[in-house]
This record gives sequence, C-alpha cells and structure tokens, in this order.
Amino acid sequence: MVYYLPRTALRALAPAMSLLGLLAPGAGAQAPTPAPLTPAKILADAPPGAWRKVAPENLLMMTLAGGGRVAIELAPEFAPAHVANIVRLARAGWFDGTSINRAQDNYVVQWGDATEAKPLPAAIVANPPAEYERPAAGLAFDALPYRDAYAPRIGFVAGQPAAAEGNIAWLAHCYGMVGVGRSNAPDTGTGAELYAVIGHGPRHLDRNIALVGRVIDNMGDLAARRRGTAALGFYADPAEREAIVSVRLAADLPAAERPAYEVLGTDRPAFAAWVKARANRKDDFFIRPAGAVDLCNALPPVRKAGG
Amino acid sequence: MVYYLPRTALRALAPAMSLLGLLAPGAGAQAPTPAPLTPAKILADAPPGAWRKVAPENLLMMTLAGGGRVAIELAPEFAPAHVANIVRLARAGWFDGTSINRAQDNYVVQWGDATEAKPLPAAIVANPPAEYERPAAGLAFDALPYRDAYAPRIGFVAGQPAAAEGNIAWLAHCYGMVGVGRSNAPDTGTGAELYAVIGHGPRHLDRNIALVGRVIDNMGDLAARRRGTAALGFYADPAEREAIVSVRLAADLPAAERPAYEVLGTDRPAFAAWVKARANRKDDFFIRPAGAVDLCNALPPVRKAGG
Repeated sequence: MVYYLPRTALRALAPAMSLLGLLAPGAGAQAPTPAPLTPAKILADAPPGAWRKVAPENLLMMTLAGGGRVAIELAPEFAPAHVANIVRLARAGWFDGTSINRAQDNYVVQWGDATEAKPLPAAIVANPPAEYERPAAGLAFDALPYRDAYAPRIGFVAGQPAAAEGNIAWLAHCYGMVGVGRSNAPDTGTGAELYAVIGHGPRHLDRNIALVGRVIDNMGDLAARRRGTAALGFYADPAEREAIVSVRLAADLPAAERPAYEVLGTDRPAFAAWVKARANRKDDFFIRPAGAVDLCNALPPVRKAGG
Repeated sequence: MVYYLPRTALRALAPAMSLLGLLAPGAGAQAPTPAPLTPAKILADAPPGAWRKVAPENLLMMTLAGGGRVAIELAPEFAPAHVANIVRLARAGWFDGTSINRAQDNYVVQWGDATEAKPLPAAIVANPPAEYERPAAGLAFDALPYRDAYAPRIGFVAGQPAAAEGNIAWLAHCYGMVGVGRSNAPDTGTGAELYAVIGHGPRHLDRNIALVGRVIDNMGDLAARRRGTAALGFYADPAEREAIVSVRLAADLPAAERPAYEVLGTDRPAFAAWVKARANRKDDFFIRPAGAVDLCNALPPVRKAGG
C-alpha cells in the first residue's frame, strides 16, 4: 500500500556522520561535483551589493541577564508611533531592570515590566493609534510568487515579511517578529510590553496588533526559554523571569560597541535566486523539491556586517 | 500616511491585567455577554464523542533526565516500516541512555545515540523503504478549505496534518511533527535518530523524509532547549546533551502508569466549528478576522483523557 519513491544510489557518498547532518540547510554544498546551486552557495557567492546594511537608528539591542544579546530590526514604515515610543523607552533606559515574563509554547515570548506599575517617561504617547495596517502606496513591496493562506499578496518590505490586499499592506506574524502587547482596545499598546513569535507564525494576529520589527540575531535566546506554567505561559514563580539588563538603540551606543548587521536585500537578484533555490532544493539530500516556499520560510538571511 | 482602523469603545471593559493576557487564545471567553463563540468555548462545549482516544499502541512516551515527559502519537498509516522499527527500539529499551543531541533554532530538536555506534537490535530493518508519501486511496482525509503554499489539498488524517496532490498523500512538517533522520540515500533512516520540528513548519521537507507522528504533550520540553552552538545546532559540549531516561510505548506500561490522551476528531462537527472560529476570531480582542487558517495553525487540540 505504501508508495515507494525510486531509490538513488548515493549511499556510498554519504559519510557516517552525515546521518547527524541530515537536515543541513546547504549541507549539499560540501557534496562532490557537480555542486548543486544550494541556498547556502547562493549566499556565499552573493556580491557585497546584495546585502543591505541595517541602519543603527533602526537596530534595537536587548541584553539579557543570562548573557543573551538579541538584535531587533525596527519597522518604522508600518508602526511609526509605536516604534517612536519604543525608541523613547530605550533612550530613557526604561526597559533596564524589567524582565521576560511569559513564554507560551508555539506562540510568544513576552517582556516588559511585570508589575505593570513602572511609570512611563513623560514623552511616551499613552494611546498610539492602531498601526496594524497601512496603505500599500509608497511601499517598495518585493512580492513572493507563491500562495498564502491568509492574503492574496505576500512579500517583503524593508526586509520584513508583509502581506497585502487591495491597497492595504501589513506586516506578517512570522517566527521572530516582534509586536506590541495591548489590551482589548486597539490603542492600549504603548510599546512597553513587547513579544516575539516563537512558533509557527500565528498569522491570525496580522492586522490585529502592531508589529514593530524582526529579531535578526540571537532569536534562540528568546525561543529557548523554559515555558511558563501559569495561564498563557506566564511564569508562575517570579524567580523564573529573566531580567533585562538593557535595551538600547545601536545608534546610541559608542561606535566601538555598536553591532552591525546586513540583511540580504529582497530587491536584489541574489535574494530572488535564494528564494528560488529554497523552493526547489536540488542538493543530494532532497528528492522532491517543494516548488514553493511559505512566506515565513523565506525570511531574508542576515549576517554580521563584513561577514 | 498611516491607515487608522476605527477605534472601539471597549477600553472600559479591559481590566489592567488583560494587558498581560493580550494574546490569550480564547481569553474573550471571560468577556461580558454576549459571549462570542471562541475556539476555547467550542472546545469546552464539545460533546465527549467529539474526542478520539489515542490508542496506547500508537502512543510513545519519552522521559527526559530533566523530568520532561514528551508524548508522541505515531502515524503508522504513513510510515509503517519506520514506525515498526521505532516500536521495536522502544520495546528493546534501546533509546534509554541516549540523548538529545541537537537544537537548531527555528528548525529541529534531534535525539538518538550521539556516538552513532550503539548496536541496533537484530529485529530492526536496517534500510526501511522511503515512506515519504503514499496513495491517498484508503485514507480518511478531512480536508481544510484554505490555501496552502505547498500543496493543492491539505487536511488531516488520523489527527495528523497532511497534504495531497492527485492520488498521493503525505504528512506535513508542522510544529511538533516527529521525523526520522536519514543520510542522503532515502533508505538510510532506521528510526534510531528522530527529530521534532520546533519552529515555523519547514514544509520543504515534506515528501523528503519519513514523518512518523506528532508530539501531543509537553512539546515545550523539547522546544525550550538551549540551542546548540556547533554546526546545525549540535551541542559543542557533550555535557549540553540531555539524557533520555526511557522511551516506551504506552501499551507496554503498567495500566496505572499509562497516560491517556484524547484528540479532537477531525471528522467531527466540533472540529469544523473550532477551525472556523480560529479562522474568524470574533472575541473582544480581535478586530479583523483572518478568514482563513494555515494548516499548521489548525492542529487538532489535545487533552488528557477524561479532561
């Protein structure tokens, strides 16, 4: 009853250790000739101009008590009032000493002031508008030519996963996207309570919450946190919360301490080639290319600048 | 330039603490009347017949040194030879004393014998066939009426996320799905090296690896593991590996120790109502229902039997 695919005769090529490397993105790049055009090889061969530098004004660095250093690229194109609040909070050092308070499996990790009583700086807009979507006009929307369950059009804007319908565009809740917690009323999220997506993209939140950016480094420091056992994944014991040492805008750090990242430009030929290769894997491991890729599985690659 | 959604006048209803509960699936169930038909309410009201008992012969329990107890429902309909091998390994106690060896962020956690030298029991089929897809005929395929990037048809078979094209069906790499590590040759995965998906569903692996089941309890015990720093997320230091105390089939446990789970039957009206409510969230928090849901965001709910 089982449908057997044709077997290949590649086994002699497979060293014993490759059993452990079985899921290697681009592992085939080490395979004997002819070298397949893997996603990894496309990245390695991409010219410097294929990479876009992350502006230090849009780069938020969060240092955790355990040593983690999470990098977030902000998306002011979509949620300017929320991003402005977050920048003000960072500049005021407001997040310092707050904590990670929630880790709900296959959903979100959330951080901010656990007491909800810490006063906000005077400059904070207490009720920013509901920046959940915006006109598509004026955005450079690099479309992805594949189907999506949630939207008729998908792609990338300024390196962030996005979707559109008619003349409206919005950011998409993919793994690693950062959003602003809010209460039931749409204007109740100040930016003082943030979350990052840690599971399969909960895209039903799209157009319902303000997304403000994407984690571009050390996402594992958030995603690997022990799940909370109280309702919604909150930590039952305050001791389980990890303290946030600091949240700073990279632009505000001394030049010597300023991290620098590059993201593969979604308007560049190398990105198009990378997406196509991810959708049509052809290395020695893959038997049947998918022929497509989900929006959240095509997030632009990131590297340390100069790397 | 920003498109402002209409604001609602719900703020007076929102208690201060709900800022922390902002992402609650079904949090609206506690809202004042009229109570919306939330996914949580549909589950709470589902009749006993809406729940399918997980057969103890298909339930694999993995106990970790740290106390985690991961439950996996096996899918023999799709990978009978691989599942038979895994059952033989569990019955032989072969996994006991092996370890979790890899945690690659937004991809997989993988376990088995880190040395790759532990002899397999004689009964193990060393080169099982490539059970990556099978004829759709003979399967009860409960279709999901939404778009998918990877396949023309999606749905559920025996509670597992699945896809189909023409007369061929296969299991889908959603969060929590368990697969068999292999080398480049399709018949090199014995079942002694397993992985679970811990990020956005890497559906490009569909039809390329044998999926054997789904984690139905304590997935967080796998997903929250510290990411490995060696290539592909392997642990650089063997001390980082978490030992596996035991892997047993529930049917082989003494009755008093046998966990019992129920999964919402995907052929039942309650499941259809739950999917529809997830696709069209209408509680006090949601402003704009998605109108659809991704296959991997509609995995059948699970509960302890009798719960």
